[in-house]
Amino acid sequence: MNDLREAPIGVFDSGIGGLTVAREIMRQIPEERIVYFGDTARVPYGSKSGKTIIRYSCQIARFLKTRGVKVIVVACNTASAYALEALQQEMDIPVIGVVRPGARVAARESIGGNIGVIGTAATVGSHIYQKYIQSLRPEAQVFEKACPLFVPLVEEGWRKDPVTRIVAERYLQEMKERKVDTLILGCTHYPLLRSMVADIMGPDVVLVNPAYETAMELKQLLRRENIENCGGSKIEENPYEFFVSDQAEKFRTFADSILPIDITTAKQVPIEEY
Amino acid sequence: MNDLREAPIGVFDSGIGGLTVAREIMRQIPEERIVYFGDTARVPYGSKSGKTIIRYSCQIARFLKTRGVKVIVVACNTASAYALEALQQEMDIPVIGVVRPGARVAARESIGGNIGVIGTAATVGSHIYQKYIQSLRPEAQVFEKACPLFVPLVEEGWRKDPVTRIVAERYLQEMKERKVDTLILGCTHYPLLRSMVADIMGPDVVLVNPAYETAMELKQLLRRENIENCGGSKIEENPYEFFVSDQAEKFRTFADSILPIDITTAKQVPIEEY
Repeated sequence: MNDLREAPIGVFDSGIGGLTVAREIMRQIPEERIVYFGDTARVPYGSKSGKTIIRYSCQIARFLKTRGVKVIVVACNTASAYALEALQQEMDIPVIGVVRPGARVAARESIGGNIGVIGTAATVGSHIYQKYIQSLRPEAQVFEKACPLFVPLVEEGWRKDPVTRIVAERYLQEMKERKVDTLILGCTHYPLLRSMVADIMGPDVVLVNPAYETAMELKQLLRRENIENCGGSKIEENPYEFFVSDQAEKFRTFADSILPIDITTAKQVPIEEY
Repeated sequence: MNDLREAPIGVFDSGIGGLTVAREIMRQIPEERIVYFGDTARVPYGSKSGKTIIRYSCQIARFLKTRGVKVIVVACNTASAYALEALQQEMDIPVIGVVRPGARVAARESIGGNIGVIGTAATVGSHIYQKYIQSLRPEAQVFEKACPLFVPLVEEGWRKDPVTRIVAERYLQEMKERKVDTLILGCTHYPLLRSMVADIMGPDVVLVNPAYETAMELKQLLRRENIENCGGSKIEENPYEFFVSDQAEKFRTFADSILPIDITTAKQVPIEEY
């Protein structure tokens, strides 16, 4: 049992976006170790089929298992939408995604039950946010919209660019017309556009970042399963490990810029072999 | 020998862009059969490392070989930039890319030797166009620029959109300032933005689409190797076969819209196993 308490948390994403979730876990549960995997060779997942997303996610979960993780966090909305059930069936450790926590807080916080969701084409096409929200709050109206250019714009470094503003205004136009009172940022890149989206939607619309809720759900899960690292065992100097399927150095630089710690290495893994 | 003459041409790309090359081969060498593979599961290649691009390209070449192709056309600038040499070493059939033909025509057609190249981050980072052009015309000045948003904009269907125009004007600004007289469209998606690029660059700048030159080089190669399908053997009703690694139906719809033939099927292949 002691071993499991000190085991790391596995976090994975299609690429770099999931670092916003890892960052939230570091903030909320600083005593836990993390093993992060970013599938930088096969990113993006948002334009792939459900079957392929499941195959890739299972390979990653198997790899994380070899690193001795005690729980897996699917820090990618698209993978959460398609692969969570398959992962939960295959793995003998708990697996949680980002969709359910995001849906839960939106269902709870929305005043009028008029909820918007933005995400990748695959996430939106799955209608999973709508299903979860309406299972919690059947009368809720859920409007979903794919924003395929947001990820490339963020990765181009145009987070505060006038072009991104024009694109965002166009994507969000329908959300404004439908007068949503709550908007879920249903892709891990989107919190990086948060201030622009907030400005466009106006002060009365609540923006939901599933990363925070996911970290809180993880905290509860660790406590419930009695596997939290709270036994006074000191966490070592470098408790975070990073693995990728490609472009390790580029990943390291990006991770270093958004995480509150120094990333010294990211190791490349032949993920297809898992 | 007869078998080889009637064997198909293998064409591959990271996804759908290479269809612009296949289209050109269909136009220029209508008597040849084609087996096309689009790596729609792992697209895009433009943001991957050279090593990963080589590994993926070799898997695809091995798959094409199982379909009995007599020659392989790498219809992807990024794969041509990184994997051509490895493919030529591994395969016992001729392999040609799109970069060398594009570079050759630019070196030949440019009046002042002031040549621009636009492409993915990986293609531009390889400086391969510059190397080829300067090997043919040492005094040429070559200016390269990555345009990472062009592919997502085309795939979003915003080919004639004002947003795409703003992005294109920004990307091409430096090319105009440097007064290039010839501009290579160094990514298979870019010919789909040809009229916009032409309008921005002005009537004095020659735009080079490597697809046409590649088809002509292929024609010469088949003749030189004496493997062209010219023996009067009738080409059958459906001489083109399409394979993908994901999203077969979506691919079929897109292919059907840009090719001058009816695509009835695209089959999905587990490409990692090759």
